[in-house]
Amino acid sequence: MIKNLLIIGSGLIGSSVLRTVVKKKIANKIFLFEKSKLNIKKIKKLKMPVIVVKDLRNEISKMDLIVICTPMSEYEKIILKVNNYINPKSIITDVGSAKEKILKIIKKKLKKKISWISSHPIAGSEMSGPDHGSSNLFLDKWCILIQENDTDKKKLNLLKKFWKKMGSKVSVMDSKKHDVIFSITSHLPHLIAYNLIKTATEFEKQKKYNLIKYSAGGLRDFSRIAASNEIMWRDIFFNNKHNLSKSIDLFIKNLKFFKKNIISKNDKLIINKLVEAKKVRKKIIKLKHDINKPDFGRN
Amino acid sequence: MIKNLLIIGSGLIGSSVLRTVVKKKIANKIFLFEKSKLNIKKIKKLKMPVIVVKDLRNEISKMDLIVICTPMSEYEKIILKVNNYINPKSIITDVGSAKEKILKIIKKKLKKKISWISSHPIAGSEMSGPDHGSSNLFLDKWCILIQENDTDKKKLNLLKKFWKKMGSKVSVMDSKKHDVIFSITSHLPHLIAYNLIKTATEFEKQKKYNLIKYSAGGLRDFSRIAASNEIMWRDIFFNNKHNLSKSIDLFIKNLKFFKKNIISKNDKLIINKLVEAKKVRKKIIKLKHDINKPDFGRN
Repeated sequence: MIKNLLIIGSGLIGSSVLRTVVKKKIANKIFLFEKSKLNIKKIKKLKMPVIVVKDLRNEISKMDLIVICTPMSEYEKIILKVNNYINPKSIITDVGSAKEKILKIIKKKLKKKISWISSHPIAGSEMSGPDHGSSNLFLDKWCILIQENDTDKKKLNLLKKFWKKMGSKVSVMDSKKHDVIFSITSHLPHLIAYNLIKTATEFEKQKKYNLIKYSAGGLRDFSRIAASNEIMWRDIFFNNKHNLSKSIDLFIKNLKFFKKNIISKNDKLIINKLVEAKKVRKKIIKLKHDINKPDFGRN
Repeated sequence: MIKNLLIIGSGLIGSSVLRTVVKKKIANKIFLFEKSKLNIKKIKKLKMPVIVVKDLRNEISKMDLIVICTPMSEYEKIILKVNNYINPKSIITDVGSAKEKILKIIKKKLKKKISWISSHPIAGSEMSGPDHGSSNLFLDKWCILIQENDTDKKKLNLLKKFWKKMGSKVSVMDSKKHDVIFSITSHLPHLIAYNLIKTATEFEKQKKYNLIKYSAGGLRDFSRIAASNEIMWRDIFFNNKHNLSKSIDLFIKNLKFFKKNIISKNDKLIINKLVEAKKVRKKIIKLKHDINKPDFGRN
């Protein structure tokens, strides 16, 4: 059991870490730092055994594990605050969705001999804030841990144990590979969803047609993804901009090819492409990332 | 009540029309023509009061309403079959998702004085086939009816009544407007989903990374949309290719603009775009096209 655990930030992910740690009795004492007074109020309403700390100074030295659940753009400020108090025995981790670039900044700013081992639980929702957290958020979901050449293996193993206790399946890779993979499986899909909504809005203004009224045929599902938190997603896009940029280029290349073959009515090629896409769906169902039940829209 | 109703095709939509007509007692006698023996078997298992007809000849003349629920590429064949038997009093309708181009072909091929009034129920699922139909599929969903200059208003009103009895909300517009609207709200989103899956597959082959394993962060939701029926979607893409092509161009223009501003880290502009997208989501929730509950993936 972890003696003292500190969670920084109590949004969807932070409050889900809190809920899960409490439910699974993973830490002896749980501390929380949150700068939003509204969020503190919401957390207090949950009546959880958590000690809300007012600053990132005195209590920091006794922490065994610090889990940072803020937007990535807050990391630098947090490091500057904790640097003078943190104990080299502690493990700091974060739950950000991009890794390579920000880990370089962290390394530069963080006091020497302090272990920051980065985590990325592949879990979330379009909703943000402490109200929407869940103690099942990490259950059976992947959590990626980042191992670089200088990563302390003993501490990496402790962090692995932590996420497994949280219910996650753990996968270890370096930050470069992480950012390449998630540029395609997560960052591009979100950008595409935002872009589709932007395109529909522009189109609606141009044509003066009421489009949103007829959103049930596809647009609706994209709008859900495009409702995700804007600070979090700006940070992700900026922190993985080079991989994302390559993904965008590949996406546009393929879309132009699709367009060309739709215009020329290339029957065989189009059918083949659509059938191939269906096969990927089958893989995803087989991996239990989704269920094999028709979705008529949520009621 | 409709005396004799014929449904042609018993996929997801056709079998849902059947289920709804039976449940709501909308027709006195229900006939079904279906060329797939497997589908007929599946329909018979449902033990519904439906008469399966073997060809599109003798029974045709007595039909009051014919609802064609096949892929659009079948329409021409069907017209050539029914032309010699159909009664000018009948109404023919279809449920296809593109209208302008195909209605021109229908007009050319269909015997004079026969009323084809096109419908488009905005309802469906990524699953196809008679097993996945539902008697609630059309409930509270929009159904677009197409009115052109030469549309028989009395018959249009009868068709309106039919869809209202089926549970739909009815909206009337011309085929041109229909195709422009749905190129953005439905056809482009589906193409984008197919294209994203195609891009991810290509990327996976190039990089030899196992991407699909980590699909929970966004790709999963697109894969559901991309699992839709390939014949149906090829027909839609081909039949609305000019509007779709313009939508693709607008989408690419916006995506390039997004890319540029991510690379230059244009903070204000990106935040503004992401916040705007969220507003559209709020509209969609307000219109009750989706629910305001966090989606953590379906279990």
